[in-house]
Amino acid sequence: MKSIDIDFLLKAFPFWKSLKQSDSQQLIENIQMFTYKKGDRIQNGADNCTGVMAIKKGQLRIYIMSDEGREITLYRLLDGDVCILSASCILKNISFDMYIDAETDTELYIIKAAAYSALSKKYIEVEAFISETVAARFSDAMWVMEQILFMKLDKRLAIFLLEEANLEGSDTLSITHEQIANHIGSAREAVTRMLKYFQKEGIISTSRRGIDILNRKKLNVIAN
Amino acid sequence: MKSIDIDFLLKAFPFWKSLKQSDSQQLIENIQMFTYKKGDRIQNGADNCTGVMAIKKGQLRIYIMSDEGREITLYRLLDGDVCILSASCILKNISFDMYIDAETDTELYIIKAAAYSALSKKYIEVEAFISETVAARFSDAMWVMEQILFMKLDKRLAIFLLEEANLEGSDTLSITHEQIANHIGSAREAVTRMLKYFQKEGIISTSRRGIDILNRKKLNVIAN
Repeated sequence: MKSIDIDFLLKAFPFWKSLKQSDSQQLIENIQMFTYKKGDRIQNGADNCTGVMAIKKGQLRIYIMSDEGREITLYRLLDGDVCILSASCILKNISFDMYIDAETDTELYIIKAAAYSALSKKYIEVEAFISETVAARFSDAMWVMEQILFMKLDKRLAIFLLEEANLEGSDTLSITHEQIANHIGSAREAVTRMLKYFQKEGIISTSRRGIDILNRKKLNVIAN
Repeated sequence: MKSIDIDFLLKAFPFWKSLKQSDSQQLIENIQMFTYKKGDRIQNGADNCTGVMAIKKGQLRIYIMSDEGREITLYRLLDGDVCILSASCILKNISFDMYIDAETDTELYIIKAAAYSALSKKYIEVEAFISETVAARFSDAMWVMEQILFMKLDKRLAIFLLEEANLEGSDTLSITHEQIANHIGSAREAVTRMLKYFQKEGIISTSRRGIDILNRKKLNVIAN
């Protein structure tokens, strides 16, 4: 018998408690734990049948990519989050390609797409979980779109640096200007220019290692 | 008894045929036909409980707006299309504000949000219709995002002019540069500059009335 963390799965998938014993057993047989190293590509654009993921521990970045390789981060998923667009083969009407990378060493459970799909046809709770999760990711993506298209670069950059510091638990960020540009959907040159401005204002300092946040207070003012 | 077009509704809402007689009757009691004039605002940002719409005849534009009034068109809905984000009060996790305008004189049915919600808790087909529709609009919005962020302005503008000509059924478009800029999420100045370039190339001509497409072939080359 496989060792899986039922307590975790019950929390990640609130519909689980509605399943009959036999369906619950069936689901367990179609769940597997995977581990990824920091930097691993988990899903590659058009491969869209990885399955429904629940992140036990780690951090995923979900993004889109242009033909020329420009990236835009749509959202990140952390401990306890569920990724359903990694099973978009079972979703009607999802027609865009997504990439998923592990940003830290990550352990996650994957439910096979076909097994999830079968349950969604039987339980209204499973189907409702799909629409709730898709709606949540839709909102995340729209937030990013509003940020990129409506918000000035200084504000976007300040918000990004503060979020990044929270995620890393440190005010020293080992990240390149190129990576920041990809995250916030801007040009590298524009990011470099704005970082130089932040540096002149004493808000950050930049070095080859990355970026140090020196004045959180000023950064917060720009972000809000 | 209200006169409603059941054949139309059966087609717009494929779950209808799964409803019990009493639920179908209940639904009919909660449907109303509305008519809007060209240019009417149907939904205003945070008012998100208009109800589930099915467009009998007409054209709606769904868009987001920045604090400064900049607009970006997410998608349009035409005859037979259903709008579910106009009932986002009954959807979990939809957290962005949308605007809906009638672009032509429009007749549409609206199902009251509470009535739809009650059905979605009872019928898996109704819940599945929510996730399919939300997923379709999510894909539409991502397509727009990719267009705006990844695609060059000449291509975006060419695609927009061709789509607009198809919608209007005419190569003469009565539309301002400002309106085009809002549609494609670009700056007015950039649109004007590109239109001048198209004009110099003999692709279009511009006048106070709007834009005439002169060379569809060239426009198609730029669009593809």
